[in-house]
Amino acid sequence: MGNQGKAKRGIPPKSDFNAWYPAIVEIADLVDKRYPIKGMDVWRPYGWKAMKYIDALTHAEMERTGHDEVHFPLLIPEDLLEKENRLVAHLKAAREAGVDPSELRFDEEVEGFSKEVYWVKHAGETDLDVPMFLRPTSETAMYTLFPLWIRSHSDLPLKTYQIVNTFRYETKQTRSFIRVREIHFFEAHTAHIDEECASKQIAEDLEIVGNIMSDLSLPVIISKRPVWDTFPGAWYTIAIDVIMPNGRTLQVASCHHYRDQWAEAFDMTYESEDGSHKNCHQTTYGMSERLLGAVVGTHGDDNGLIFPPKSAPIHVVLIPVAAHKSEAVMETVNSISKLLRESGFRTHVDDRNIRAGQKYYDWEIKGVPLRLEIGPRDIENGTAFAARRTGGKQPISIKNIVSEVTNELNEVQQELSQRTSQIFSEMVQPLTSLDGEIVDGIIYEIAFDGNDADAESLEKSTGLTILGDCVVPFPDEKPCIISGRMTTKRNHLARMY
Amino acid sequence: MGNQGKAKRGIPPKSDFNAWYPAIVEIADLVDKRYPIKGMDVWRPYGWKAMKYIDALTHAEMERTGHDEVHFPLLIPEDLLEKENRLVAHLKAAREAGVDPSELRFDEEVEGFSKEVYWVKHAGETDLDVPMFLRPTSETAMYTLFPLWIRSHSDLPLKTYQIVNTFRYETKQTRSFIRVREIHFFEAHTAHIDEECASKQIAEDLEIVGNIMSDLSLPVIISKRPVWDTFPGAWYTIAIDVIMPNGRTLQVASCHHYRDQWAEAFDMTYESEDGSHKNCHQTTYGMSERLLGAVVGTHGDDNGLIFPPKSAPIHVVLIPVAAHKSEAVMETVNSISKLLRESGFRTHVDDRNIRAGQKYYDWEIKGVPLRLEIGPRDIENGTAFAARRTGGKQPISIKNIVSEVTNELNEVQQELSQRTSQIFSEMVQPLTSLDGEIVDGIIYEIAFDGNDADAESLEKSTGLTILGDCVVPFPDEKPCIISGRMTTKRNHLARMY
Repeated sequence: MGNQGKAKRGIPPKSDFNAWYPAIVEIADLVDKRYPIKGMDVWRPYGWKAMKYIDALTHAEMERTGHDEVHFPLLIPEDLLEKENRLVAHLKAAREAGVDPSELRFDEEVEGFSKEVYWVKHAGETDLDVPMFLRPTSETAMYTLFPLWIRSHSDLPLKTYQIVNTFRYETKQTRSFIRVREIHFFEAHTAHIDEECASKQIAEDLEIVGNIMSDLSLPVIISKRPVWDTFPGAWYTIAIDVIMPNGRTLQVASCHHYRDQWAEAFDMTYESEDGSHKNCHQTTYGMSERLLGAVVGTHGDDNGLIFPPKSAPIHVVLIPVAAHKSEAVMETVNSISKLLRESGFRTHVDDRNIRAGQKYYDWEIKGVPLRLEIGPRDIENGTAFAARRTGGKQPISIKNIVSEVTNELNEVQQELSQRTSQIFSEMVQPLTSLDGEIVDGIIYEIAFDGNDADAESLEKSTGLTILGDCVVPFPDEKPCIISGRMTTKRNHLARMY
Repeated sequence: MGNQGKAKRGIPPKSDFNAWYPAIVEIADLVDKRYPIKGMDVWRPYGWKAMKYIDALTHAEMERTGHDEVHFPLLIPEDLLEKENRLVAHLKAAREAGVDPSELRFDEEVEGFSKEVYWVKHAGETDLDVPMFLRPTSETAMYTLFPLWIRSHSDLPLKTYQIVNTFRYETKQTRSFIRVREIHFFEAHTAHIDEECASKQIAEDLEIVGNIMSDLSLPVIISKRPVWDTFPGAWYTIAIDVIMPNGRTLQVASCHHYRDQWAEAFDMTYESEDGSHKNCHQTTYGMSERLLGAVVGTHGDDNGLIFPPKSAPIHVVLIPVAAHKSEAVMETVNSISKLLRESGFRTHVDDRNIRAGQKYYDWEIKGVPLRLEIGPRDIENGTAFAARRTGGKQPISIKNIVSEVTNELNEVQQELSQRTSQIFSEMVQPLTSLDGEIVDGIIYEIAFDGNDADAESLEKSTGLTILGDCVVPFPDEKPCIISGRMTTKRNHLARMY
């Protein structure tokens, strides 16, 4: 019966990931892709709930670390870009003055970003004097106001964030959550008295990322991107890449240390304790709905999604069995559901008048981590029959239902963490020479201490992309794959989304 | 000292409401109006928190009543408007067929709305084939997908909502929260099997509105709008108007019964139990950030904001007094704060190194409903000194702090409700003849059972706007202000925002 249903719903096998992923996001009711604009999906209730629970993890981390939530306008007047142009000029001047190229990002991408934005040049029947664009990210909007908020050192650090939609005119193929044109986006922006304090912020960001990645049990590689892949205007960028089942990496988050480059362009100064005026040092930290895409991709299986408990729209689905035979069944199910809710669990009672097997099947697709079946015999025994979405079934005591459910969900979380470690060890393979064959679906770990030219030749010869210096170096020195020099620098080569 | 500070912060007296309101929204750190687009404010952390707590009341009501949260794209392709044009054509045809004009909204405003939208006609360096606009509201976007979601009667009722930003190119003077161009907006959209079920939805909406208005202690008049003030495409509109201190009414919410007019235009049909295909009947229910504007306007005073506890970003601010004299002070303050937080209260400990008087004054401006002062002598007595923002001070027992704080906040809520009743009785005055003088700042209550022409002459002679049939009629008949016929129909004349 399960198989019939499966055929009916048409889930491709997960081994065919590029077919499975776009199918499951619709079959599990996360999104509807039939909205008539490419790359702009409709969030269905189940998908939106999952996203909001991921956002809740972010909000909690922001509160723990003293970030304040703000909300800036969507539209940005074109003339504010003048200041970004000043940033470009500043970077060019620095280059001409001979600043070490590894210390500054030098390119014209800041100018070039206008190729990716949606423009608003008309309102009603009026041609706007100053065209505006939909935020692709909020540096320009925020850094226009920050100088009004920051007067003295006592206003620092300024730690703000917002969760908003951003817009990019993607010309590449779009994929739900992974590459879309309207992006559910998190962005933290901070300002500090000096470079060191900003560096500490980056360290805090990485701690936050670590907590969230652990809650979501995602297999990640954290790397300092090479200079040419650094965010425009940043001193350096640290990116968090998830290993997806097809062996591609998906950048789900990034942190940027701006030093005082943006502050210079936006006149973001403060009066220091000695009365002098100094530039702020800044950081940003971004994440997006790609987190949900990574959860879907990492944990799902041939039968559907599997949600790590902390992001699950429903923790426990309760299925009354043979409720027509005993009034006690619905009473017990409802009272257990109520008790679990009061203890902070998200529950759902499936009292639909269909066969139990169909219900099991439906909730498997939706990835609910724990299913409880309760029939007359279970009640006699004082137990509920618990089935974990990650496998394993057993009766658990109704009397201790809250602690039993806590244990079951912890087991799901542990099982997912274990699978994540396994994904990591299977998909990340060492590469010690360029003589062997490059296999699709593998992320190659290398020792590498070469320069930009070395990196370029490495990318060319493998057809893969270099992720950057891993923040976790090798414990012992190994020979660099290019030069043979001994180094602890760890790097990765992968196909990126 | 309080007065010095007051002068410094420059709060105008609330009696000069049109000066007080725009000043207090910035002085209390709700918004920053210096963003360089008219009518698009930056939400500062304190304002955004207040809005989110109001949203939380809405989310809770939506969950209680079984509405599912969705999230639709911001951009709407122009060609979807074809269906709205079909709606206009349908309404015109009905008019020509002689349908009772009180039964249908006939006008071309659906066509005319394009005067109010922001257009996106360019993306990157591309001219878009199909121009798109930023949603002014989401009927068009949603009703394009609803027909794909609704197949049979078992899919109904469909009860959805979203909280998103909407955009209107306002040409009138803008005011924070009240008239802005980027609007923080709530919209519920439902579909039902027939007119009666849709009518029941409107009744449920009014119950929800009632709960929220009561939580926020707002003085409201609920009226069925006259035909010419009905939402385009609606059978009827029920509007919720708040009485603002300057005597103007502010529409903060509205519910629309669409019958099957939109369904007809968007092919929104379902298979009924007898196998026939029928049109859905629909409703919408909208609210916006105007709720926060109404909270600010209704409850504030010369010293700043006053938040009703349910929307307060901070319920209780704790002020340690003479903490340098006794280590026990900070310990006690922190442990009380912790205990209150664990009991669900939003607390803040103000341990800044400034005079206590300045702290009192700052938190008065921000409208925190309850202040607790705790010093060495209070601790000796086992009490905290409680000061309600609505007036009244007394020591309360630390031992029973949770129940004491609950009581204090209930008293604040009761006091605000009482003030709201008083606002109502002072500002709403009966008008029984058109001979007397019309006084600015008064809302006139009238008995009225006239037709459109009578209403028009009434508006002309008073210079006020007719709000519509109040949903609470007079208990006894009174003579209609125009015809003298006896009627229980209650109506109001007011200057509207």
